Amino acid sequence: MLTYEIIHEDKNCGARVGIIHTEHGDIMTPVFMPVGTKATVKGLAPEEVWDTGARILLSNTYHLYLRPGHELVEKAGGLHKFMNWNGAILTDSGGFQVFSLSSLRKITDEGMEFNSFIDGSKHFFSPEKSMEVQRALGSDIVMAFDECTEPGISEKKAREAMDRTIKWLDRCSKFELKPHQNLFPIVQGNTFKNLRIESIERTLPYVKTGIAIGGLSVGEEPEVMYEMLQTMQPYYPKNAPRYLMGVGTADYIVNSVALGIDMFDCVLPTRIARNGTAMVHEGFLTIRNAPFKEDFTPIEEGCDCYCCRNYTRAYVRHLIKADEIMGGRLLSIHNIRFLQRLTAEIRQAIMKDRYLEFRDKFMKNYTLG
Amino acid sequence: MLTYEIIHEDKNCGARVGIIHTEHGDIMTPVFMPVGTKATVKGLAPEEVWDTGARILLSNTYHLYLRPGHELVEKAGGLHKFMNWNGAILTDSGGFQVFSLSSLRKITDEGMEFNSFIDGSKHFFSPEKSMEVQRALGSDIVMAFDECTEPGISEKKAREAMDRTIKWLDRCSKFELKPHQNLFPIVQGNTFKNLRIESIERTLPYVKTGIAIGGLSVGEEPEVMYEMLQTMQPYYPKNAPRYLMGVGTADYIVNSVALGIDMFDCVLPTRIARNGTAMVHEGFLTIRNAPFKEDFTPIEEGCDCYCCRNYTRAYVRHLIKADEIMGGRLLSIHNIRFLQRLTAEIRQAIMKDRYLEFRDKFMKNYTLG
Repeated sequence: MLTYEIIHEDKNCGARVGIIHTEHGDIMTPVFMPVGTKATVKGLAPEEVWDTGARILLSNTYHLYLRPGHELVEKAGGLHKFMNWNGAILTDSGGFQVFSLSSLRKITDEGMEFNSFIDGSKHFFSPEKSMEVQRALGSDIVMAFDECTEPGISEKKAREAMDRTIKWLDRCSKFELKPHQNLFPIVQGNTFKNLRIESIERTLPYVKTGIAIGGLSVGEEPEVMYEMLQTMQPYYPKNAPRYLMGVGTADYIVNSVALGIDMFDCVLPTRIARNGTAMVHEGFLTIRNAPFKEDFTPIEEGCDCYCCRNYTRAYVRHLIKADEIMGGRLLSIHNIRFLQRLTAEIRQAIMKDRYLEFRDKFMKNYTLG
Repeated sequence: MLTYEIIHEDKNCGARVGIIHTEHGDIMTPVFMPVGTKATVKGLAPEEVWDTGARILLSNTYHLYLRPGHELVEKAGGLHKFMNWNGAILTDSGGFQVFSLSSLRKITDEGMEFNSFIDGSKHFFSPEKSMEVQRALGSDIVMAFDECTEPGISEKKAREAMDRTIKWLDRCSKFELKPHQNLFPIVQGNTFKNLRIESIERTLPYVKTGIAIGGLSVGEEPEVMYEMLQTMQPYYPKNAPRYLMGVGTADYIVNSVALGIDMFDCVLPTRIARNGTAMVHEGFLTIRNAPFKEDFTPIEEGCDCYCCRNYTRAYVRHLIKADEIMGGRLLSIHNIRFLQRLTAEIRQAIMKDRYLEFRDKFMKNYTLG
């Protein structure tokens, strides 16, 4: 059973520093969780991920259910052992991937019918099925099966999805997980303030250890996302970590922490790395571009990651241009380490009650990508 | 300047154990050199290559000349520093890649005109150009610019290429390299015994530190290759390491060592790894195949590589099936380590004057892929 210990709350905003204690180690918050979709953070060994400072990974239920199959992972001794990761693991519910990757056939109160993105075969996910799969995977944090909606839909449709999410949450909560596992309910409500408030109020009774905010950073304007976070802020249970799903750019993280968010995840840092883009305090560097051709400095001065300690921008650019796997690997390490350093800086600022200063200074120097 | 120290010669065959002393460390022979074509062993960090036991890499002049350019590598402080490899490096001459990868436009006594495989642009390699590029790269072992021929050509054509190779060698030998660099001449002669003997006799005056055998393992039958090696065996200078170019399967290595060969390289171990094939003492394992689906044992029992210490066949198969980079990476580590372990076993057998026994036992258990 997970516990959450608050170390310090910033006097001037909602930011706080805490420790999530899990069966697979402690996690300092605010935290960024790298994504290992298919039981691997693309191209990285677990030790490399660990060396960035990451102590919790996100892995995807939908992908692992389809391949290699959750029963196989369970036979292998669970996901931690299968992929050789000694830290904590959070698995999503699979719902969002059905929504975004599969040709979704049908969604009813019972669940979601979809076609596999691998071979087109027909599958059905219900709250119980999602719990069964996540139980087999053995993740430390299990996400409730929810219905995510896209921005721009009517309030009526958003309410239907939110209602369904609560009903599904109730069913998830009745499913017996393994003793070390913890169910995080997900707040929905699209971009409607009243629905967000209603969703969080109806979700609260199910919050045992942590709570997640879903359906944001899915295409709406940043201001709308922050407005939703402000709307929900007064309602969060204090002693539960709050996880903003799918958010992983520096500006979103820095701004959301002030609004009381503790946990983040996103594929973007590793995806753009494989494409040749580095994350730095000032924004993004497109390393494949010509100005870096003879640049024999590290990706970011002062960075202590394996890439910055040993390689130059010129070398990384060469690897990216030559389609060499090592280029994306080095930038993935850098980008994950960048976010670990950023969250460490965030925690330091909070400890001094200077988080708003930190945020404003950071955002002043940051250029949006 | 490289020196070669013979530690022991097997009493019953041509096999010997030695140490190549270079400015970038010592190398035990017989040795297998992994290939890092574009200043990276595909997908592996230098530390991982080092941890397999490898102390010398091969890198490709042709590729680095075209991208990122040898001048850039020189500005970066040379290839060792550019790619962060602390061991020794051997570079090929570029001739073979012109022959195998480019649309070769013209070959004359002056050199080879070819089109870039990247953008089709026109380039010219001469013996002097190859030396200039390899000098800039700063490799420890520099290969002479030669003309490789394919099996099945007439003796007349083979002689022409061999003659040209000697003329080019003479020009290479006049080019001033850096003090730590060592030129290895290459013996050619296709599959004609008389040409092989003539080639080696005419090459001997140019052998300062080591000698290479080119134009074998390029499509001829294995028996023909061994016959050529037997033909040349009496002519090798004793105190120079003998490098059989482009050979890297276990059976070829094991058989060639008995015929006096000390050095090997091949892209095959890492190429087949990325394709899901593991090298083991009994031959090849196609890990992507169904029988390994629920096989929770390591790739090879008794192997001490990073892959075998931490992962199962089932996990590696999952990664390969899911097109995850980490699969090829783990198998690359395993295959390189396999060949390092194999050459260590070879050296042990030679030290005991039992190499022929070792060879026969190994080949009895080995199934050709």
